This record gives sequence, C-alpha cells and structure tokens, in this order.
Amino acid sequence: MAGKNPIRFTDTTLRDGHQSSLATRMRTEDMLGLAERLDNAGFWAIEVWGGATFDVTHRFLGEDPWERLRTLKKFIKKTPLMMLLRGQNLVGYRHYPDDVVDAFVKYTADCGMNVFRVFDALNDIRNFEASFKALQDCKKQGLDVHIQAAVCYSLTQRRMGGEVFTKEYYVDFAKRSEAMGADSFCLKDMAGMVSPYDAFELISALKAAVKIPVEFHTHYTSGQGSMSYLKAIEAGVDIIDTALSPFALRTSQPAIEPILVTVEGTERESAIDLATMIGLGQDLEKVAPKYRDFLDTSKMSIIDTGVLLHQIPGGMYSNLVSQLKQADALDRILEVMEDLPRTRKELGYPPLVTPTSQIVGIQAVQNVLFGRYKMITGEVKGMAYGLYGRTPAPMDKEVQKICLKGYERGEEPISCRAADEIEPELEKAREATKGLAKNIGDVLIYAIYPTTGLRYLKWKYGVEPVPEEVKPIELDRIKMQDDVYNRIKQKNLFAKVQEYLDRLEKTPPAKGEGLRTFNVFVDGDYYEVEVECTSGAPVISAVTPMAAATAPRPAAPPKPTPAAAPAPPKPAAPAAKEEVAAGEVALRAPMPGMIISYSVALGDKVEAGSPVCILEAMKMQNNLPSPATGTVKAINYEPGASVAKDAVLLIIATS
Amino acid sequence: MAGKNPIRFTDTTLRDGHQSSLATRMRTEDMLGLAERLDNAGFWAIEVWGGATFDVTHRFLGEDPWERLRTLKKFIKKTPLMMLLRGQNLVGYRHYPDDVVDAFVKYTADCGMNVFRVFDALNDIRNFEASFKALQDCKKQGLDVHIQAAVCYSLTQRRMGGEVFTKEYYVDFAKRSEAMGADSFCLKDMAGMVSPYDAFELISALKAAVKIPVEFHTHYTSGQGSMSYLKAIEAGVDIIDTALSPFALRTSQPAIEPILVTVEGTERESAIDLATMIGLGQDLEKVAPKYRDFLDTSKMSIIDTGVLLHQIPGGMYSNLVSQLKQADALDRILEVMEDLPRTRKELGYPPLVTPTSQIVGIQAVQNVLFGRYKMITGEVKGMAYGLYGRTPAPMDKEVQKICLKGYERGEEPISCRAADEIEPELEKAREATKGLAKNIGDVLIYAIYPTTGLRYLKWKYGVEPVPEEVKPIELDRIKMQDDVYNRIKQKNLFAKVQEYLDRLEKTPPAKGEGLRTFNVFVDGDYYEVEVECTSGAPVISAVTPMAAATAPRPAAPPKPTPAAAPAPPKPAAPAAKEEVAAGEVALRAPMPGMIISYSVALGDKVEAGSPVCILEAMKMQNNLPSPATGTVKAINYEPGASVAKDAVLLIIATS
Repeated sequence: MAGKNPIRFTDTTLRDGHQSSLATRMRTEDMLGLAERLDNAGFWAIEVWGGATFDVTHRFLGEDPWERLRTLKKFIKKTPLMMLLRGQNLVGYRHYPDDVVDAFVKYTADCGMNVFRVFDALNDIRNFEASFKALQDCKKQGLDVHIQAAVCYSLTQRRMGGEVFTKEYYVDFAKRSEAMGADSFCLKDMAGMVSPYDAFELISALKAAVKIPVEFHTHYTSGQGSMSYLKAIEAGVDIIDTALSPFALRTSQPAIEPILVTVEGTERESAIDLATMIGLGQDLEKVAPKYRDFLDTSKMSIIDTGVLLHQIPGGMYSNLVSQLKQADALDRILEVMEDLPRTRKELGYPPLVTPTSQIVGIQAVQNVLFGRYKMITGEVKGMAYGLYGRTPAPMDKEVQKICLKGYERGEEPISCRAADEIEPELEKAREATKGLAKNIGDVLIYAIYPTTGLRYLKWKYGVEPVPEEVKPIELDRIKMQDDVYNRIKQKNLFAKVQEYLDRLEKTPPAKGEGLRTFNVFVDGDYYEVEVECTSGAPVISAVTPMAAATAPRPAAPPKPTPAAAPAPPKPAAPAAKEEVAAGEVALRAPMPGMIISYSVALGDKVEAGSPVCILEAMKMQNNLPSPATGTVKAINYEPGASVAKDAVLLIIATS
Repeated sequence: MAGKNPIRFTDTTLRDGHQSSLATRMRTEDMLGLAERLDNAGFWAIEVWGGATFDVTHRFLGEDPWERLRTLKKFIKKTPLMMLLRGQNLVGYRHYPDDVVDAFVKYTADCGMNVFRVFDALNDIRNFEASFKALQDCKKQGLDVHIQAAVCYSLTQRRMGGEVFTKEYYVDFAKRSEAMGADSFCLKDMAGMVSPYDAFELISALKAAVKIPVEFHTHYTSGQGSMSYLKAIEAGVDIIDTALSPFALRTSQPAIEPILVTVEGTERESAIDLATMIGLGQDLEKVAPKYRDFLDTSKMSIIDTGVLLHQIPGGMYSNLVSQLKQADALDRILEVMEDLPRTRKELGYPPLVTPTSQIVGIQAVQNVLFGRYKMITGEVKGMAYGLYGRTPAPMDKEVQKICLKGYERGEEPISCRAADEIEPELEKAREATKGLAKNIGDVLIYAIYPTTGLRYLKWKYGVEPVPEEVKPIELDRIKMQDDVYNRIKQKNLFAKVQEYLDRLEKTPPAKGEGLRTFNVFVDGDYYEVEVECTSGAPVISAVTPMAAATAPRPAAPPKPTPAAAPAPPKPAAPAAKEEVAAGEVALRAPMPGMIISYSVALGDKVEAGSPVCILEAMKMQNNLPSPATGTVKAINYEPGASVAKDAVLLIIATS
C-alpha cells in the first residue's frame, strides 16, 4: 500500500548492479528468468544498458549488445528501460562526432530504450546537445523516450563545498538541464561519496530549484549509501536507484529490501512488494556463482573507507594499483596518491568518472613513473586541447602548454563545443565494415570500438571462431570447482596438491620404448608408476647361469640404438625478433598494453622522437616515440596484440 | 573536533565484530597489534568479552578466556572494557546458581572488566538480580565497574508494535532497570531488526523516560543498521556500537567510518579520528585472512533480507538449515518456518536470542520431524517449568502441561525467580576439578562448561596434549593455500586436480605375488617402496653370457619365498558393537550430537520410554528414552563422544 508521495525506484540489478559487483559479466540468458517479474514489480524504470554493458558484451561475452536490449524488451514491456549514456562519449571512452551520436541514439531508441540518462564526464552541458537533439527527434517520431540529464557528483574535500563543487554548482546544472529540455534530473554519485546530510541539503535545494522529477543515484562504496537515500527521501527526492540485495551494496547501489521496510507506514511508503523482491533475490543467487570469480574478495571489508579519506573512487584506486603492479612499481602507490590531487587540479578538476578518472589516474601514474608530464597520454593532450569539453575549473596554463606542444590538432586549445572539431565518421565506419556489417547496429559497434568491435563482428558472422574464454561458464563447472576446493580444504590436502601442481609444471621427456608400468606401494599408498631407465646400472644385472649362486654384479648398460634413444630436449628457440644487434635500437613497451597501430612500416626512415606506435594501456592511448633515428628493421606485433612491459615493439637500425 | 553533544562509540571489533563475522575465532595474539591504538582512539568502551568468547576460546582455540581478558587489560588501560553477560546464564547456555554467578562476576571484575552489559534472553528482569548484586559489591570494594542493563529487542511482526513488543514494553523495562541501579541502558537489537523510524521513536521515548545514558546496539543483518543508527543519533542516543569496517556490516555491527563522516559538522560530531580508524582497519585486514574459512560466503548478498520478512535472525535460520541437513531433512525447511511462529507463541514469545532462539528453533524442528511436542528437549521442559524465568507472554497452558508431564522437578511450573530453584554448584565444581584447577577461574570454566571446560583444563595443564586443530593457523599457510587456489584457477587445472584427488582416494589393488620391496632414498628421505610390475617387458632380462649379442628376452619373474610374500590385505573389521542381534533393540541417535551422559550402566534393567542417555545436539540436551524394556547389553560411546545420526548408542537385550 503506497503512501501519499511514494518513493519510486529504478532497479539497477541488470546494469550497474552486476557492473559494480561482477565486472559487468552477467549474461542475457541469466537475466531472462528475472525479467518478467521485474517488469511486474512496479519500478519507475529498469536500468539494463550502458557503456560497460556495450563494451563487455561484445568484447568478453561474445554477445551482441543490441540483441541484449531487444531481447530484454521482449520480456520487460511495461516498465521503461533505462540506459546510461556518456553524452558525446556514447558508450565508449572518447568523443564521437555528431553523426555517430545521432545514429546511435536513434537506433538505441528503435531497439526499445526509453529513459536515456545522459551525463558528461566533465559536466560540460554542451556535450548533451547532440544526444538531446537526437532524443527530441525520436519524440517527434512518436518513440517513447525520456530524457534524463545527470550531473556527476564530485568532491575536492571530504564533504560538499570547496572551490568548485558547491551546492550552487549542482543546482545551476539542474536548472540548465531543465531549460535544455530534460524530462528529469539525476544526481549521479558514481563514487558513493555523497554524505547523508549533504544529500539532504542538496536534494532539498534541487527539489526547490527545478520542476522536473529528481532522481538520486549513489553507490554503497563508502558505506554511506543507504543513509544518504534515507535523508534524500526525507528531503523529497522522487526516485532512487537500488539493486536486488545479491548485486547490491559493496561498490554497487544500496539494496532495495531494507529501504522498503524503512519507509513502511510513512507517506513515502512504496507499493513494491517485499516478498517479490526477496524471491527475485533468491533466484539471482542461483545464477550468481557463475560470476563469482569477478567478485572482489581481496579484502574482508565490503566498503571502501579510503574513499572517505581521499575521495578517490574505489575502482579508480584499484586501477592505479593494477597499473603500478603491471609496471612493477607498486611501491610507488603513495607517491601516485600524492600526485593525484595535484594532477587533477592542473587538469581543471575533472570529476572522477569514466573516462576522466582513468585519464587523470594514468597521467598521475606516468607523472610519478616517468617524471611529471614527461610522458603524456593522447587523452590528456585531447583534454588539454578541449576535445572532451570544458573542464569544471580552468586547466593550469603551464601544464596545458606542455600538453599541447606539437599536438597534431594545434597548440591552441579550442573553446567551442568539442564535437564541432570532430569530422563525421559514420561513412568511414560503413566503409570499413562493408561486407561484414548487416545493419547500422553492426556499423555502430565498429564505429565505437574499432578493434574489439571488428573482432566481435567476425565472431558474430562466423568469419573467425568464437574463442573458448568468451563462452559462458555452466553451473556444473562451478559445482565441480567447488568440489575441488572443498575436498582440498576439508582434507587439508594443500601440501599434496601444491606438490602435484609443481610436478605438472615440470616438462616431462617424451616416453621412450623402454617404458614399463608398475604398481607401486609407498608407505602403503598406491601409485601407478611408469619407469624408464635412462642411465646408470640396471637393477637386475646379467648373470651367467653357472654363477647364479654368486653375488650378481652390475653389467655395463646396453647401448641404446640410435632409433630408440629419446631425443635430447631441445632448448627453447630464442625469440629471434627480440634480439637487438649492434647498430640497432629497440622500442620497448614502457607498460603492458595492446598495440593499436604503427604509423611506420618496415623499411621506413624515422626520426628519434617521432611517434611510431600507439600502445593502448588501461584504455588510454600512448603514442610512443621512436627511440632513435634510422630505419625500421623489425615490427614485432600485429595491431590488436597484447604486449608485456618491456616487450620489443620494433627495432630501428641506426647504421 | 567534537560537536556540542558528540555521539559516543563502543567498539565491538574484538567481540561482536569477529563473533558475527568469523565465528568468534580471532585469537588474542592478533588483537594485540590493535589494542593500544584502540585504547587511544577515544571510544566510550571497547567490547572484548562475552558468552561466545568464553565458549570458543576454551573449546576451539585452546585459549584461557580469563587470560585473554587480563592480557587485553594490559594494553587497554584507559578505555573501559565491556563484556556481554547473559544474566543468570553468565557466559553459558543455562541458568547457573547464585553462588556461581557471584563468583563469576567478581572474578571477571578482578580480571579488569569494567562495563557489564547484562541481558536476559526472556527479558525477565529478575534474572539481573544476582549479577547486579555482585556488581554492586564490586563497586563497594572500589572496583571500577559499570552496570549496563540491556533489553532484547524482539518483534512478532515486521515493525515495532503488536501484542507484546510495543514501545511501552521497552520503556517500562528501561525504567525498571534504572530503578534497579543500572548505570546505563542498552537497546540490544541482536538480530538487526530495528527499522530506522522505529529506532527514532523508541530512542526518543527511552531518552525521555530515563536519566541514565542510552546505548543502542544493532547488527547490519537486515541492511537497516546504519540507517537506524542515523535516526537514533537524531533522536539523541548517547552511545552506539560499531566495528572497524573489516569486521563490520554483514551480520555484524555497522561500520564506524561512514558514521564519523556523516556526523561531521553537526552537533553530534565525534572527536574520533577517521584516519586512525582506517589505519586500524588496514592492520586488521592483514590478520583477517587467517580466519576467512569461517566467513559465510555461501551467498552473494551480504545482508539477510529474509529477516525483514519473517523476523527470524540470520544465525538462527542457518542453524535450522544445518540441523535439518544433518537430519537429512532439509526439504522440510518450509514446514519448520511455518511451525516456528506457532511454537514461539506457544512457548510465550521468548525473544530470539541465545539460548532461547536455539530452544525455540530446535523445538520447531523436532515438532516437524517427530510430531508436535512428541520429542521435547530438556531445555523446553525447563522453560515450561520456569527455569529460564518468566516468558514475555504466558505459555500456552496445554503445551506447558505436555512439556511438564513427568518432568523431574515437578509438573507444576514455578513462579519464583528461576535461580531460587537451583542448588549451589560452586563447591561441587571445586570438588570435580580438585588437583587440576589452580584458581577460581579454572573452577568457573568447569562450572560453566563441564565437558569442554574439563577437556580444556587438561590441555592447559598438560594432562592431555593440545590437538592439532586447536592450534593457530599461520599467515604463511594462508599464502600457501592461496597459491594452490590461484594456480588451479589461473591455469584452469580443476579437471586435472579433481582426477588427482580421485586417485588419492582410489582403493589400491591387492598386492600380488610379483611384489618386491625396495629401500629408496629420495633427496635423502627414506621410503619403503613396494613395486610390482604389472605390464610390459623388463628393462633388462637375465641373459646367458654366450647369447649376449642376441635380443634380450623377458625372464619369468622370480617366485618370492613364502616369507617374502606380502600378507593379503585384511578386510576392515566390522564395528561389532553396532551389530544388533535377534532379541536386541538398539537406541540410535535421532540426530547427530555429543553424548553427555548415560543414566544407566551395563547390565541395568530398563523400562521402555525411561530416559537412558542425554544427547546434546545444537547445544540442546535431549534425554533419549529407552526403545524397549530389557537389560542394557552394550553402551557404545563415552560421554563427550560425537556421534552421527543413527549411530547405535546402546543396545537393550529384550529376551
């Protein structure tokens, strides 16, 4: 029985729930068992799609992101479907041109998307223009779409305030969103940093400032999430984002169930049925084990208290740790943490959300590892140029100059809307996927993710086989894994299994003709043993019949015939292309990553310092300079190849 | 910087934190690294001790519970130490006589305990009398003790109210506690069921009703915990119970860190330093992996939404599941869940807390498995008689009558204070531990836990060796276990390891005539190796000197002399005492448990239905009736032995 002004819910289980808990790995097949009941539950919206969904489906799951959307729409007919749209970044990590934005938004609406939650990583509202325009076109065509503008909540200190991210900053953004035609407004606290009393103050102010409904999206990360929802509910927020408890809490949204009970008997009571939510949660538990390897179990604590202290989102922190680990420099994490606020300030205080959290974080890492701004990612250069939009505060002039020195687009930053600088790309994408893409959806997968997108299209149309690791894991396999873990644990067989694993790593020689099989009992334990004598005296010597009573003496072992002799193990062939001769200089990967492209070919002349190869690391593109002047003598990896730190990417002959 | 009326904190990390998260397994040695910093942090109290602590230390950890207390006192000098005292149940599961209560409380105070949080499972305030009196004696002797009365929060419906557990019920209890001399009052929500707005209402009422400070203790179990604290803080609660984040949340207390940030800038701001808490949490993470096997990881969800629906504490529910599993009747869980509210009502609505949650739960299980009140635990009989005190509502008259039929103490329930019915026990305990116990602490361990307590004293004084499983696990072993898990996971060696584990379990073949024995030294380690060739040609055959150039031919294996022939494997002798002959009837264990005692001896005549053996299952004592009239022919287990379901406990010869 709903109250006078019931709180409404957007369920995030199928998007942010598994994105935050399980690296977005939940497959469509496991969503279908829940979909119809979710549809009947009475949510304001069900969030099912977004950037990570689009990325992970085609990259890791071998799933067509559009197909997921269309399939869910078949089961979720009454409740609006919601997606998270990264403004001009769509569902990728860079600004796309307006033609791609327009096609993407319209095709998404065609596939059944209703609520488009649009945000921009820099909170530059101009980056909403293209998608808003496309959505307004959709409305005109009679499509059931809802435009939600979202502001990224960010902090430069423990609580709301400071020099940039004040209450007025957010209220102003909400007013401008409303004026631009947003149907609702969302306070998007992607790092879970809103503190309950700040939530109360800010939601109260937003409710007073705009007429459109106000939705509040937070994460449980800092442990304040459900308290912040409670205070936001008291402040009159219209809608909150929650997940079913198995995919809630931790770094995900607060769980819906305790909130339903909390508001019972108040005027904000919801009509959503608690027992239904619990039943759905139980069914979710049944499929959840398939994805458990993606759950972060490295710590006992299920909240990230560090974010309370340093305002670095948990995911960003673990990315930094992982990048430093890969660079074999984890001991420098404290330096990076110290550099971060400085780098962030120099870069104009971008909110720490995809992709700006990565851009700022990786630049801080590179500042520490290679010297401040000695190595600048392409993304930071782009941000300095204005390609991501206007930063919340102006960039440091000096840093901006360093970043733009020799920048291909120009050394003077732009002040126009970022996308005005980008050439149309849709036709090029059509061209590049000709003969493979069957519809605009396919073209868009390529347009947004050229490398992995093309690979996916090849899987989809059988041009290349779908690799094993992309295929779903079955519950039977999970049960079998559990069986192995439990038997080892219960019988304390760790030491035995460790020895066994060690043995597995030893490369055995080829089995020769002299191999014999024995039943062997060692201290009573039975072993099946195969034995081949490869040297030394035999156990049983040759004896003369007459001397049978005398002690046997070892005889010389028989010489093996050349054919029977096992081949001596071959030493592993040295990777020839990694060898650098005199008069040659190697370009080594400064960090692990994926080769995107080379701007030189075999035999080309290159200048020291000129860019030769784009290495993507942590989703950032680094244009690596030639280490010497000379001729390209070897190019060791194909674009798309993953390379380790210090891998020799190419070799320049200097003489 | 504290506010005008700062919220105070009791830290539960070293008691309820690890009790709720890790089955109370944290060892003293791992507490010491935190103790001094906790002492300096500015807590109102630090909870370190209680029933589960006393039980687990001596039962599973081989630790002296008194020694833990004295050791912690050496490191925590400024902040009051707190313990949870189960009223007349002390730190056990039954009512103890006043002499034991008096000695226990005074010795605990002598060892350095300050705040005694006293509760009674039935909220029968008369069960506070003996411990309050002892504590008042301690005060007179100048000991620094603080008496805190706690009421168990209980529900019969989703939110506060209903026929028993109303706001007035709790307020009345608080007033009576204050009148009895309590120095502070605690609302103890052991199942985490207080809903935020009920917390606000109840704390407001309590603050208005009593002058003594009001403390609020909840668990995160239902996901409402931190919201309830926030509303309680707004209602003016004086003290709340929290844990450091690694041991917080889940079924433990809410975490302190997010609450510290939440109250910043309000008049309830605390002076406790966030960075100190985070540093302590990081150190706790370092030792936590030792205990991870006790963490419940069976579900993705870290809250128990079921408790919101059915008000059954999570721990109680999992006990029911585990008992049904052991009885091979897990399919009857829904029947048990239906029976539970009925059984609880019939038994007078005891709050669901140790030990009443077990008493009610197991009776409901037995009602389902064996028929309603066909098998009644000794504890339920005792409760019906009044041995636990007065139930919150009167018991069902009919059920009470069935329970008391033939009850050894009498068929008419008592109405006096329960402990008035109990004979003194301290002298008997002294007697029983003579020659072993060195002080009153030792005697009390036995007085409260006769079976496991005596076993512990034998370990303590070297009369019996401390078993391997009681010894601490080292972090190196955890690292090694992780190494094993990770190697299996990363290289996907599950199938190979499963085969290997299967091989380890394979029954070896019978040893044949060809078996030979070798002394083998591998890396200097000696093995007795028995080898039997089962296939293939021998490596080197016996050859005649003249035929050296011809191909070697296999020779017949030498016949072993009779003396060398291995004995054929003996079949395992059948457990003779489990065999039941004609004219004999076996008493089988109806459920797994521990034999406490037999009331008959070998050769005794017994009547069918007369009690012969006490079996403790799930901490409840069941007096098992003889299955037949006859003579005791066999008693198969010693008291203290653990027995499986259906084990033959004794055999009655009927002819």
